[in-house]
Amino acid sequence: MAKKAKIGVLGASGYTGSELVRLLLRHPRCEIALLTADRRAGQEMRSVFPQFSHISLPKLVSIDGVNWAGAGLDLVFCALPHGTTQDVIKRIVAAAPAIKIVDLSADFRLADVSAYERWYGHAHRAPELQKQAVYGLVEVHRRTIRHAKLVANPGCYTSCAELPLIPLIKAKAIELSEIVIDAKSGMTGAGRAVKETMIFSEVSEGFHAYGVGHHRHMAELDQEFSAAAGREVIVTFTPHLVPMNRGILSTIYVRGKRGRTPADLHAILSKYYAKEAFVHVLPFGETPQTRHVRGSNLTFIGVANDRIEGRAIVVAALDNLVKGASGQAVQNMNLMLGFLETMGLEQVALFP
Amino acid sequence: MAKKAKIGVLGASGYTGSELVRLLLRHPRCEIALLTADRRAGQEMRSVFPQFSHISLPKLVSIDGVNWAGAGLDLVFCALPHGTTQDVIKRIVAAAPAIKIVDLSADFRLADVSAYERWYGHAHRAPELQKQAVYGLVEVHRRTIRHAKLVANPGCYTSCAELPLIPLIKAKAIELSEIVIDAKSGMTGAGRAVKETMIFSEVSEGFHAYGVGHHRHMAELDQEFSAAAGREVIVTFTPHLVPMNRGILSTIYVRGKRGRTPADLHAILSKYYAKEAFVHVLPFGETPQTRHVRGSNLTFIGVANDRIEGRAIVVAALDNLVKGASGQAVQNMNLMLGFLETMGLEQVALFP
Amino acid sequence: MAKKAKIGVLGASGYTGSELVRLLLRHPRCEIALLTADRRAGQEMRSVFPQFSHISLPKLVSIDGVNWAGAGLDLVFCALPHGTTQDVIKRIVAAAPAIKIVDLSADFRLADVSAYERWYGHAHRAPELQKQAVYGLVEVHRRTIRHAKLVANPGCYTSCAELPLIPLIKAKAIELSEIVIDAKSGMTGAGRAVKETMIFSEVSEGFHAYGVGHHRHMAELDQEFSAAAGREVIVTFTPHLVPMNRGILSTIYVRGKRGRTPADLHAILSKYYAKEAFVHVLPFGETPQTRHVRGSNLTFIGVANDRIEGRAIVVAALDNLVKGASGQAVQNMNLMLGFLETMGLEQVALFP
Amino acid sequence: MAKKAKIGVLGASGYTGSELVRLLLRHPRCEIALLTADRRAGQEMRSVFPQFSHISLPKLVSIDGVNWAGAGLDLVFCALPHGTTQDVIKRIVAAAPAIKIVDLSADFRLADVSAYERWYGHAHRAPELQKQAVYGLVEVHRRTIRHAKLVANPGCYTSCAELPLIPLIKAKAIELSEIVIDAKSGMTGAGRAVKETMIFSEVSEGFHAYGVGHHRHMAELDQEFSAAAGREVIVTFTPHLVPMNRGILSTIYVRGKRGRTPADLHAILSKYYAKEAFVHVLPFGETPQTRHVRGSNLTFIGVANDRIEGRAIVVAALDNLVKGASGQAVQNMNLMLGFLETMGLEQVALFP
Repeated sequence: MAKKAKIGVLGASGYTGSELVRLLLRHPRCEIALLTADRRAGQEMRSVFPQFSHISLPKLVSIDGVNWAGAGLDLVFCALPHGTTQDVIKRIVAAAPAIKIVDLSADFRLADVSAYERWYGHAHRAPELQKQAVYGLVEVHRRTIRHAKLVANPGCYTSCAELPLIPLIKAKAIELSEIVIDAKSGMTGAGRAVKETMIFSEVSEGFHAYGVGHHRHMAELDQEFSAAAGREVIVTFTPHLVPMNRGILSTIYVRGKRGRTPADLHAILSKYYAKEAFVHVLPFGETPQTRHVRGSNLTFIGVANDRIEGRAIVVAALDNLVKGASGQAVQNMNLMLGFLETMGLEQVALFP
Repeated sequence: MAKKAKIGVLGASGYTGSELVRLLLRHPRCEIALLTADRRAGQEMRSVFPQFSHISLPKLVSIDGVNWAGAGLDLVFCALPHGTTQDVIKRIVAAAPAIKIVDLSADFRLADVSAYERWYGHAHRAPELQKQAVYGLVEVHRRTIRHAKLVANPGCYTSCAELPLIPLIKAKAIELSEIVIDAKSGMTGAGRAVKETMIFSEVSEGFHAYGVGHHRHMAELDQEFSAAAGREVIVTFTPHLVPMNRGILSTIYVRGKRGRTPADLHAILSKYYAKEAFVHVLPFGETPQTRHVRGSNLTFIGVANDRIEGRAIVVAALDNLVKGASGQAVQNMNLMLGFLETMGLEQVALFP
Repeated sequence: MAKKAKIGVLGASGYTGSELVRLLLRHPRCEIALLTADRRAGQEMRSVFPQFSHISLPKLVSIDGVNWAGAGLDLVFCALPHGTTQDVIKRIVAAAPAIKIVDLSADFRLADVSAYERWYGHAHRAPELQKQAVYGLVEVHRRTIRHAKLVANPGCYTSCAELPLIPLIKAKAIELSEIVIDAKSGMTGAGRAVKETMIFSEVSEGFHAYGVGHHRHMAELDQEFSAAAGREVIVTFTPHLVPMNRGILSTIYVRGKRGRTPADLHAILSKYYAKEAFVHVLPFGETPQTRHVRGSNLTFIGVANDRIEGRAIVVAALDNLVKGASGQAVQNMNLMLGFLETMGLEQVALFP
Repeated sequence: MAKKAKIGVLGASGYTGSELVRLLLRHPRCEIALLTADRRAGQEMRSVFPQFSHISLPKLVSIDGVNWAGAGLDLVFCALPHGTTQDVIKRIVAAAPAIKIVDLSADFRLADVSAYERWYGHAHRAPELQKQAVYGLVEVHRRTIRHAKLVANPGCYTSCAELPLIPLIKAKAIELSEIVIDAKSGMTGAGRAVKETMIFSEVSEGFHAYGVGHHRHMAELDQEFSAAAGREVIVTFTPHLVPMNRGILSTIYVRGKRGRTPADLHAILSKYYAKEAFVHVLPFGETPQTRHVRGSNLTFIGVANDRIEGRAIVVAALDNLVKGASGQAVQNMNLMLGFLETMGLEQVALFP
């Protein structure tokens, strides 16, 4: 049997951290060698996430206590809050340059450090590392990811907008000035942070938009859409919160360019994703539900006619913790470590 | 003390029916004199809706058994399925022309009977009554409603789109060709119908769009928006289902016309609704949540800047069973019977 | 028109506080004259609870800033956390002895201050006031409540166990050593506190027991059951959390004494509550659902045969924020101020 | 590579059917060779369960059209409604005696056909097959299951009561006359049946008991508990519905016999399950949550002190569709076909 890769998960007490552990436990080529969680250091993983009660896992440690040079790690997932991550990764790279890194935070997603500064309100603290970072949307950047040392895993909202839109933008099939993305997310998209707005009674039995007009995910969308178009693209994007745990659904309103019909757009997407394991385009006119990708690494995409001639409605659904975070991260790892891309990610959705 | 009006509720075993009963029980000028429910005829209301277990109410009867001429009713609410209602109302009007009627179905909402035929697939069976019917969106048609004999209560989705949009269309403040309405509804919008798609496990923990590109509510929107604009208006409208009981939220994307900014649109709406008891415009930049109008007859409207210059995002929220159905119906009744418009509708939202 | 009583609500930024405001807004004899919320002092109520956006209410102030002697208040509701309340009430009583008080915390529920010390881990800081406090379960202590200056409003779990059990205990109809109370509560029972265990994703789509074997509500049960029995009674009680906002359901297992059958127990309860407005006993064999009392001040009680001869299953349901807290408190206020007991509490459940 | 077993799933359009498909798709030694669904015959699995949209599966056929003798099946799962199953299995056994069968219905669970008749209201139609049927609670009947041709998979409620109680009963550690099982289940326990009581708005935001005093699962409990005790045992059992999809939690009240303390009971359970892969006993005093076993084949069991001396509270949690149905069924299959017992069932819970 092939030797297993030694994997670390930084930030194992959050939801993307526990989701990484869930996926890695069924990955035949990985061994979980390190779990960090600063505020829970010294505790067992089972006291933080009782679903692992019956499983033997490394004890949680603090990041500062890790001997990076001596840990023998092949790859580290950073599931830490935005902002602190760049410092942590700088230290890891300095101490153990051979360790590959998949970062699930937003810290290395923006290639343009001045864009980072504009959106996040402070100068980037590892601009030299930013140059090496590769944006980890596998279906778009697969080739560069294979040779990357540091991959910036995309955001969940952005994945659910980029996967349906980038092929259409690349094909010059839609008007770039009229794209409206109305996005809806389950609560785990906000992580395990403890805020009044996240407690059950503030979330259940209700629905609302938030960050209307000024959500940080827009920076990522701007970057990827502009790269796909070869010129600046700015879209309208509104996020909403759904009283559910997992899932993002994007309802996207577009107008076909140069006579492209909704069926043409469907054909472009179908062809683009024909050989992809994790993106599936439904028959024309059908649209997806988040529940049917829950727990899986899949994105389902549908295209339908709008009633207004020449306009189409594109709907995409994924699980924000899997294809929108930890599953995508494992997919990136598989490429970086030379494993089969689908390894450990074969799970079908848990529905109902 | 003033004499109480005698009220009938047809279709009392459905959700809009029970919601009418809930509201009428606290209405100081109404007495519930008749409750019908064909399949439950002979049963007590409490066996169909146990929340009334402690209250004395008329026994459920079948519509066919009612002696309309002798019932002494002042007003009847029809909370029956679309399609059958027009026959029932024709019979009531023939037997007892003095009875006023508020119809909660879609049967009398389209003034143009050929539009009805196109959208519903059969000729209207009471076209002469359609001529008398008044569209019951109080804040827009208050004056004609006061003298109406038959009021067609608006749909829930349409109310939540018309209230924010009609003032803007009337003011010629927005581009009519670029309106996108992304609407989200709780499950009671689909009534108490028993279908596989409505069972708990098919609805909870998930989110999806439906009727993409071809929902019947569009006919109503076309009618009211075109009337407001003085010319044909067709909008993009996509309904979605939220795993919650009550509430509709519309996220509406518009572009200001002739230099109107989002703040200008906000000012138009604020002025239009300044004296209304049931429509409240939030401060500029704030957007509403469905949970904060739950159980009340209120509509909350917010307006925010889109990041794209000249475009605004308008968000409206209401309770589909109250302002979107039975509360609106009671508001119509209040006008038709000469009561104070807010009577029986003073309830604040039940949150959490 | 009769003069309105001037009412204060201390702790208006919590759920029992907002629920008091909801109820008082429809109470014909009350005026909300004071709202406190220390951490939100200076803010409008609408910024803390947007459901009041359209309503004019006093600005939130801090408790320390209130001039009790000059405020002209008739009655104050204390909806403050356990522990701090006794100090606050001591100060109010010292400064303005005429103000009547309904305390929704646990601070004055235990007549025996040594029991308080045992369960809460510190000496009671207002033992002299404790002597005047009346336990506010109206259906049991109505007469003393009428003349009380300080009423300790019962807990939500305890109300839902005491209402079904006290009449049976008083009637000596059940074995006292075999009472098992399996209780289930919605999340608002835990208030608006911000803890990891209360965030949406930790609560939805799951069910669990907590405080197994050692929940503080037991002290209150011991007191009231022992008083009813005339000797010490200790029961088994297990609370659980249901992924819903409102509602408590108690499933209670009892054995009839001296040949009392389940039907006999049902008869005892039916008779005891025959004239009560807010406690309704269902027909024998039927059991209640929390959703059918949601938002109302009702308790529904059902009794059914266990399959084991001589044993009965008693099920009670109430809304923890209404009959389990703020509705009960208003009911107490109505008695203390000489109003009709049902005033402001006529609302039927909001279902669905 | 070892040859794959050819597997059939009868009733693939229900939830236990789709769950079998989900599990079998990741089972390295199984091939799904047959899927039946009478009312959906001729359709693709993806039109009934869109989570399989991207996967190639046999088309749905009707049971009557299957050529059992020629199908080459090794094992068939029957996920059909109670009552019809016995006829279907009789025909399969007659046509193809070599096919092994795991039946997920209640039809073959009661060894005593007169008990079946009493609880189900009609004579058993395959009493000769009943004699061969083995009750498939693996942790209790593993040895006989290995050689069985027909296994009756236990019910979900019963599994969640038998796993914690049978070891205690076998050890003669608890009083048999005082066992109270208060059970709570998610909605998928009721299957995909379309009834008014199952639609979202009748289930969400509420909690209730049902079948109080007379639930059919009791027959199974009687059988297994009496077998473990060596004499007749009758328990109190009340099922409740939780507004969630998956999960059963049993709160069980017992009294230790001959001085057995709760800690003793914990020790008995810990020892009994020490080597089991799918039953995990938590540290003394901790109790489980359903969400932490969601989607996995695990049962978590906790034991705590009751406040009444000598009494214990035992809490068990499992996923009703996995360990309570399809996972248990695959575990049975693994034994019957000689595979590793845990094969295809390694999945950790999907939380959150």
